[in-house]
Amino acid sequence: MAARRALKFGVTIFVLQLLFILLFAFLAEYDDSAKPDTNGSYSNQSSSDIPLVYPMFQDVHVMMFIGFGFLMTFLKLYGYSAVGINMLIAAFVLQVALIVRGFIYADLIGGDRFPINIGEMLSADFAAATVLISFGAVLGKVSAIQLLVMAFFETILAQLNEYTGVHKLHTADIGESMFVHVFGAYFGLAVARVLYSDDTDEHPKEGAVYHSDLFSMIGTIFLWLYWPSFNGGAASGDEQHRAVINTYLSLAACTIVTFALSAIVDKKGRFDMVHIQNATLAGGVAVGTTADMPLEPWGAILMGTVAAVISVLGFKFLSPAMTRVLKIHDTCGVHNLHGMPGVLAGIAGAVMAALASKDKWGSSMCDIFPARAEDDSTACDRDLDTMRTAIEQGGYQMASLIITLLIAIVGGGLTGLLLKLPIWNMPQGDLLFDDEANWEVADNAVV
Amino acid sequence: MAARRALKFGVTIFVLQLLFILLFAFLAEYDDSAKPDTNGSYSNQSSSDIPLVYPMFQDVHVMMFIGFGFLMTFLKLYGYSAVGINMLIAAFVLQVALIVRGFIYADLIGGDRFPINIGEMLSADFAAATVLISFGAVLGKVSAIQLLVMAFFETILAQLNEYTGVHKLHTADIGESMFVHVFGAYFGLAVARVLYSDDTDEHPKEGAVYHSDLFSMIGTIFLWLYWPSFNGGAASGDEQHRAVINTYLSLAACTIVTFALSAIVDKKGRFDMVHIQNATLAGGVAVGTTADMPLEPWGAILMGTVAAVISVLGFKFLSPAMTRVLKIHDTCGVHNLHGMPGVLAGIAGAVMAALASKDKWGSSMCDIFPARAEDDSTACDRDLDTMRTAIEQGGYQMASLIITLLIAIVGGGLTGLLLKLPIWNMPQGDLLFDDEANWEVADNAVV
Amino acid sequence: MAARRALKFGVTIFVLQLLFILLFAFLAEYDDSAKPDTNGSYSNQSSSDIPLVYPMFQDVHVMMFIGFGFLMTFLKLYGYSAVGINMLIAAFVLQVALIVRGFIYADLIGGDRFPINIGEMLSADFAAATVLISFGAVLGKVSAIQLLVMAFFETILAQLNEYTGVHKLHTADIGESMFVHVFGAYFGLAVARVLYSDDTDEHPKEGAVYHSDLFSMIGTIFLWLYWPSFNGGAASGDEQHRAVINTYLSLAACTIVTFALSAIVDKKGRFDMVHIQNATLAGGVAVGTTADMPLEPWGAILMGTVAAVISVLGFKFLSPAMTRVLKIHDTCGVHNLHGMPGVLAGIAGAVMAALASKDKWGSSMCDIFPARAEDDSTACDRDLDTMRTAIEQGGYQMASLIITLLIAIVGGGLTGLLLKLPIWNMPQGDLLFDDEANWEVADNAVV
Repeated sequence: MAARRALKFGVTIFVLQLLFILLFAFLAEYDDSAKPDTNGSYSNQSSSDIPLVYPMFQDVHVMMFIGFGFLMTFLKLYGYSAVGINMLIAAFVLQVALIVRGFIYADLIGGDRFPINIGEMLSADFAAATVLISFGAVLGKVSAIQLLVMAFFETILAQLNEYTGVHKLHTADIGESMFVHVFGAYFGLAVARVLYSDDTDEHPKEGAVYHSDLFSMIGTIFLWLYWPSFNGGAASGDEQHRAVINTYLSLAACTIVTFALSAIVDKKGRFDMVHIQNATLAGGVAVGTTADMPLEPWGAILMGTVAAVISVLGFKFLSPAMTRVLKIHDTCGVHNLHGMPGVLAGIAGAVMAALASKDKWGSSMCDIFPARAEDDSTACDRDLDTMRTAIEQGGYQMASLIITLLIAIVGGGLTGLLLKLPIWNMPQGDLLFDDEANWEVADNAVV
Repeated sequence: MAARRALKFGVTIFVLQLLFILLFAFLAEYDDSAKPDTNGSYSNQSSSDIPLVYPMFQDVHVMMFIGFGFLMTFLKLYGYSAVGINMLIAAFVLQVALIVRGFIYADLIGGDRFPINIGEMLSADFAAATVLISFGAVLGKVSAIQLLVMAFFETILAQLNEYTGVHKLHTADIGESMFVHVFGAYFGLAVARVLYSDDTDEHPKEGAVYHSDLFSMIGTIFLWLYWPSFNGGAASGDEQHRAVINTYLSLAACTIVTFALSAIVDKKGRFDMVHIQNATLAGGVAVGTTADMPLEPWGAILMGTVAAVISVLGFKFLSPAMTRVLKIHDTCGVHNLHGMPGVLAGIAGAVMAALASKDKWGSSMCDIFPARAEDDSTACDRDLDTMRTAIEQGGYQMASLIITLLIAIVGGGLTGLLLKLPIWNMPQGDLLFDDEANWEVADNAVV
Repeated sequence: MAARRALKFGVTIFVLQLLFILLFAFLAEYDDSAKPDTNGSYSNQSSSDIPLVYPMFQDVHVMMFIGFGFLMTFLKLYGYSAVGINMLIAAFVLQVALIVRGFIYADLIGGDRFPINIGEMLSADFAAATVLISFGAVLGKVSAIQLLVMAFFETILAQLNEYTGVHKLHTADIGESMFVHVFGAYFGLAVARVLYSDDTDEHPKEGAVYHSDLFSMIGTIFLWLYWPSFNGGAASGDEQHRAVINTYLSLAACTIVTFALSAIVDKKGRFDMVHIQNATLAGGVAVGTTADMPLEPWGAILMGTVAAVISVLGFKFLSPAMTRVLKIHDTCGVHNLHGMPGVLAGIAGAVMAALASKDKWGSSMCDIFPARAEDDSTACDRDLDTMRTAIEQGGYQMASLIITLLIAIVGGGLTGLLLKLPIWNMPQGDLLFDDEANWEVADNAVV
């Protein structure tokens, strides 16, 4: 039985990978800057984005595989899956995202091919983040094949949502707090709701041991450190410099407040590792949409402060209530780390958009909001036939946030229904939160 | 009691963070290179320091949070605090340092605001290093609130000392071996001396277990790897290239000699993890002041070799004697890793300064020692009214080292006295070296 | 006895390090770009390679010390040695490699000195990789002094082989899959063959425990993440951009297929940590030689797919057979991760070389294969008196692969014989795969 199941799983993803080869063979090509120069003129040395983009890309890459992977090793018996299945999903989504983005952005039917470059690799890593956030909500409760099915549909929907937000509604979200964090969190929560089982109630394996908490901190800290690259990686010039500064300050403030509140809400006044591992990061999410905007240093610090309050209180009071009342069991508390802080980020983005003016923002106004009117008679971007006011731009930002929530929740719910079919070997009872479901596990006897 | 204490702690740092918001709101601003361009000319893309400075900044950032944090996880029951409180202190000092530096360097009273940019972020991370080194000396023996009080006063004094050294005495210390390592080590040792308690004598919890030593090595190796960025991050051009080369070579040599001596000084000829975790890094400290100077490759290797000898012998013979005779209990042995190698770096800097000549150093002489005379009639820096000879510059370097030692020891002693007040909930007896004092600790039963 | 042995070990490597100081003092100098500018013109700021090369160098540096070091911590009782001795060997090889390369490339006898710069540091790190791969084959079965003796001879031979391949045969191997991976793997396997002992048969200490597998994953993932820097660090322009893209895609595909096959070959259909820790990386090796060539995205994905198949099947079926039949005991399975995928890379390089044409490859053809003829009458590189056709270049690539295999196997065999002398304190019986042979080990009692 198990062997047949495995064969099914193994053969399925092997065949999928062969299919990817075909899709890339027929539809993909190197971007011009990565193609051999066949014009005789040796010009593309300078046009390479590698020196500027690669260091930040690698930081984001570390966040995906070390950051998310180790953050989720906190469960005492689910470490192999946390870091291993995380790697599987991310490697899968990277490829799916490149293909899906190709279908969306390139005229494949017209015979074009979609280009691959370092910028697309960064976008593919962001796409992986979306799914890894959802993974956090269902950690320990689904099978590897369920995760891959979820990853497939979620990536398609998330890319369509991002396309709508950025290219149809012309909304700004430099650190992807809406398109990645809000989407990933609420999609995952919707899946978790549909798949809810009483088996998870006070499950003895849902908890940490001392050293699993330390492994988890490896993930937390790499996420924390490299978050300025996540929020600034897609920006440039003064926008990028601000994104780095704002994220750095927001996270520093968020960390202080997380420690403060963690002690305050504990009966014995001690810190809780769950808060430190997660809520310290909420400042990176909360400042994501506005990171490249002239928030001012104090504004960034304020965002981090508010994010920590929301996140710690969420872990302490809201999450238990959500499980009890709404039957949403959120293993990693992604609602508190990605969900609510992401909504906060989206709202802050709308507010900032409504306050933006050419006087104060200078050239950044048009850089960040291309659909704005530069002045009464000039569009920021001549190619777009839009002349939005500040208030209108703010409205579009809010619309984008709401659309993101809708697509995530409905898409997650439908995906959850699909995953409820009794064909996916969903773990139950004693196999919940346990690597034994997926892995040949080393025994712990030292000799 | 505990809850009231926690409330006091939590509320205090929460209020402090709110105060920081106000201070940043009234006193800070983005640096020009991070401000929106409101002049119409789109010029600040090129002026951004992000492409040049950011990769090295991130390396230093990793050193602070992963490096120091995990290095200190070697204690078997103090891992949460090592990596968690390390994060709290660093996030706190980052903000304090930016503010303190603002008061020192900007004309705040005249109405100016202090600028925030990637260079200031690097300086703020260096400021965190100072305090994290002192943390090593008192690890496991003080409460979180004591650490924050220490961090506050230490950051002020360390910034004033650095200002005196760099801007008044015009001394060179590119890798901050004097201003960060010597200061942090002797400040921490002075605090440890004042807080000395017999309770720490052969305390059963002051020791490692197998896997805590491996966690610690994560810290060691990231510190080791990124040290060239620490010593070279504030340099540029050929000075930066040399800083990277010298640090790389010094650390490689230091590692070999540490292993050699660790085996030699052990009765059974085995390596000691304490040496490997710490003394291998002494080469980075020892070459810090001279890293950008034309030491020559062999000179860098010699510095690393000497540093390893001092450091391993310090761990083996000096530290136990310091505890016994001087009643200085140095949990992480920061005297051997940061203290003595830092003094060595300072002396080497003075010697190199006394040997520097325009003939051999070319433009580097004035770049590194702006207070020197370029020749008999020309000052290196016209704005400074100084025309120092090589010997004079060497004297100023020594003076700066001695002032650093004095401020650190006196400042640390006074801070220690303040921390001795019976209001800080200093851990005692069984709570020494134990996370239970600060954390809700996961129990170790697997199921 | 043990103490005398240690003294011998310690004094030997200490003296060696002193000898290195002399060699560097008489033979090495800073590269021009790292020398002080003594011409008055301040020109070398711009000529520094630091901004372009340093970020990728640091990624490779992390691969050597964190990547290899932690990958090998999977053994339950050999973690100190994995990460510690790895550090010792790497720091040793860095210095040996710089000196050996000096003897090969600089006219030392004619009075020149060999230059040190960031590029040489990258080459020295690559040299360390070669030895660390061999270390994997003999992990747990040899003493520290044996490893240093092996490192010394292997580094000399590997550098001579690389010199022959690159500068005499003019073969391309941008990611050093032949010169580093094939060489290191087969050299190590030859040593392991000569040192084979029945003691290793089903040794109770040769295995993982739960948390040692997680430590190992830290190594795996950092190797996986930064592999594009390994394959692209020595390239530039569009070649570098392609190297990054190809490696990224190859590794993603390799990861999917590794998981697929790991489940397929297991009786109960579970994943095996050994496969995930190792075979996921084979895609980086397999694409190494051709990484900068216009493989096309699908070609890179195909390479990763094939690499995973070879590697997982190697672990499952070939390795046990090699131990049983050939008496080659390969602790980390380097044959499956570095050996066979490296041979695949070399063959792929030969095939690509035989297909390369000016039409399709443009300026990349001459950049990658300088010994080719640009057209019927023009040499790619006028300084070389070669006008090779595509097929000829393919032949030279194969020749280089075969020479690499020969030198590695013969050199490894001879080195093995030297290490068989009964003077090296080779561990036996209960000290196999056990840190007790080298370290003062922390006991595991928590209090």
